[in-house]
Amino acid sequence: MRFFERCEAYFTDLQDRIIASLEALDGGRFLHDDWQRPPLPAASSVADHDGPVLGGGGRTRVLEGGRIFEKAGVNFSSVRGYFSREFAATMPGDGRYFEASGVSLVLHPRNPHVPTVHMNVRRLSRGDTGWFGGGADLTPYYLDEGSARDFHAAYKAACAAHPKVGDYAAMKQTCDEYFFLPHRGEARGIGGIFFDHLSDAPEDTFAFVRAVGDAFVPSYVPIVERFQDAPVTEAEREWQLIRRGRYVEFNLVHDRGTTFGLKTGGRTESILMSLPNAVAWRYDHQPEAGSREAELVEVLRNPREW
Amino acid sequence: MRFFERCEAYFTDLQDRIIASLEALDGGRFLHDDWQRPPLPAASSVADHDGPVLGGGGRTRVLEGGRIFEKAGVNFSSVRGYFSREFAATMPGDGRYFEASGVSLVLHPRNPHVPTVHMNVRRLSRGDTGWFGGGADLTPYYLDEGSARDFHAAYKAACAAHPKVGDYAAMKQTCDEYFFLPHRGEARGIGGIFFDHLSDAPEDTFAFVRAVGDAFVPSYVPIVERFQDAPVTEAEREWQLIRRGRYVEFNLVHDRGTTFGLKTGGRTESILMSLPNAVAWRYDHQPEAGSREAELVEVLRNPREW
Repeated sequence: MRFFERCEAYFTDLQDRIIASLEALDGGRFLHDDWQRPPLPAASSVADHDGPVLGGGGRTRVLEGGRIFEKAGVNFSSVRGYFSREFAATMPGDGRYFEASGVSLVLHPRNPHVPTVHMNVRRLSRGDTGWFGGGADLTPYYLDEGSARDFHAAYKAACAAHPKVGDYAAMKQTCDEYFFLPHRGEARGIGGIFFDHLSDAPEDTFAFVRAVGDAFVPSYVPIVERFQDAPVTEAEREWQLIRRGRYVEFNLVHDRGTTFGLKTGGRTESILMSLPNAVAWRYDHQPEAGSREAELVEVLRNPREW
Repeated sequence: MRFFERCEAYFTDLQDRIIASLEALDGGRFLHDDWQRPPLPAASSVADHDGPVLGGGGRTRVLEGGRIFEKAGVNFSSVRGYFSREFAATMPGDGRYFEASGVSLVLHPRNPHVPTVHMNVRRLSRGDTGWFGGGADLTPYYLDEGSARDFHAAYKAACAAHPKVGDYAAMKQTCDEYFFLPHRGEARGIGGIFFDHLSDAPEDTFAFVRAVGDAFVPSYVPIVERFQDAPVTEAEREWQLIRRGRYVEFNLVHDRGTTFGLKTGGRTESILMSLPNAVAWRYDHQPEAGSREAELVEVLRNPREW
């Protein structure tokens, strides 16, 4: 089995395991939407034009209107093809042919006391160069310090178990810097870890990436269980809808995967499964000083060590 | 009075007249939020760095939760400053100093049978070069052919009254091309006119731009009056929320004014007043064949002459 295929096999298995855990938690069933692009044309025909050419397919899994999750997307894809000339210039490796496979998930819970979460692990290869990327980050509507510490501790442990690759301090900082909305002066959430272009020591890195993927369920499900039945006021729901607007702003304006995907012919519905079901914008909304809403904004403006 | 100041005077008066008409229609009052940036630093201090430096101010006017308008923003701004080096390279004229003034409005009605509308008129100048830009376009949730014809007819008439400048056919096509979501294969709405970089014959062009600005109220208010009391089902409201998601996608992913503004230090709340109050995303939503929802999507995929 090629290295890339071993990665694919891990990703599909990870997707299945995460979905099994989330279905057991929620009680709902994920919609299965498998998709496959037509076979790639001959390499010689691609040389004629500058744009991207995509093949491959994926397993999109979405749950809407669940007991716990208002929207949950847990996608696997394995795409191959030819980068556009423009994009190729920004990536490591040689030539335009690439392969990319991974799992990407975003979970939007119904209860504002349960945080939204994102996790992604992926393998890319181009010519003789291959690399891993990914991470996990938490986006609460109300700050719970215990949850923030537990979530970070899970990925800190994954890093500590693979010290040749996992550098929690650096990956935590990269996460804070990446998931940041300059036009709001706020982080998207309370962070986690984020890494990309890990091309050295493929076996060690693959083991680290598996540790990150495997850490997801134990890092998040206990937080859901703790807060899923917390009472919710109308004002708390309104705050959740407004904060989800920030999530949409980040994903549509800044997120590289989203904007690149939308602009280069990625599968729109799979890419935008990250957007929440219900969202609100209010003109110049400011939380009351000293409120729990203001406490959240404070930590988004001044990321902490957990 | 300098030419630019005459433009500013027209824009502030236009804003006042539009707001008076909309308040009379809705019964609600716009929130007044005037803002002013600190004075610009000396030109010599700007040469030291590459980023933009902005001065000037504006009159943001927002109505939320009105009888007719769930959200309405009608903004005037007059900004001056220094383009970033990067942005300067993409614009006509010389040097980095610029002035920009205009009116920009987006109205999101409550009733899904009343279309959302956008209108913008603006004057820019840089060094010895000055130009106008702007346009108006309609985004219905349900197609009403009479409204589409009337809306287009208003701007066709504005063009016909200023034949040296106004080229309805070309400006209609530019609008269809600009307000297009490639990742959805759909136009944002049923179009209108769109123009930019009109730098010749400033007096004639200013007269044309005034005709466009003055056409706004008569092009839109009668459509509101016709449909404001139409009965609404839950399914129609749901469709409106989903279509508003497309509006958000266009504005955050593609709209040049929005993305440029957010990335270069524009006033976030004034820029994002274009986003609707309540929005929904549904995974892979497809309207039923033969429905009025499908009729709308059909015309968005195949823009017509009106």
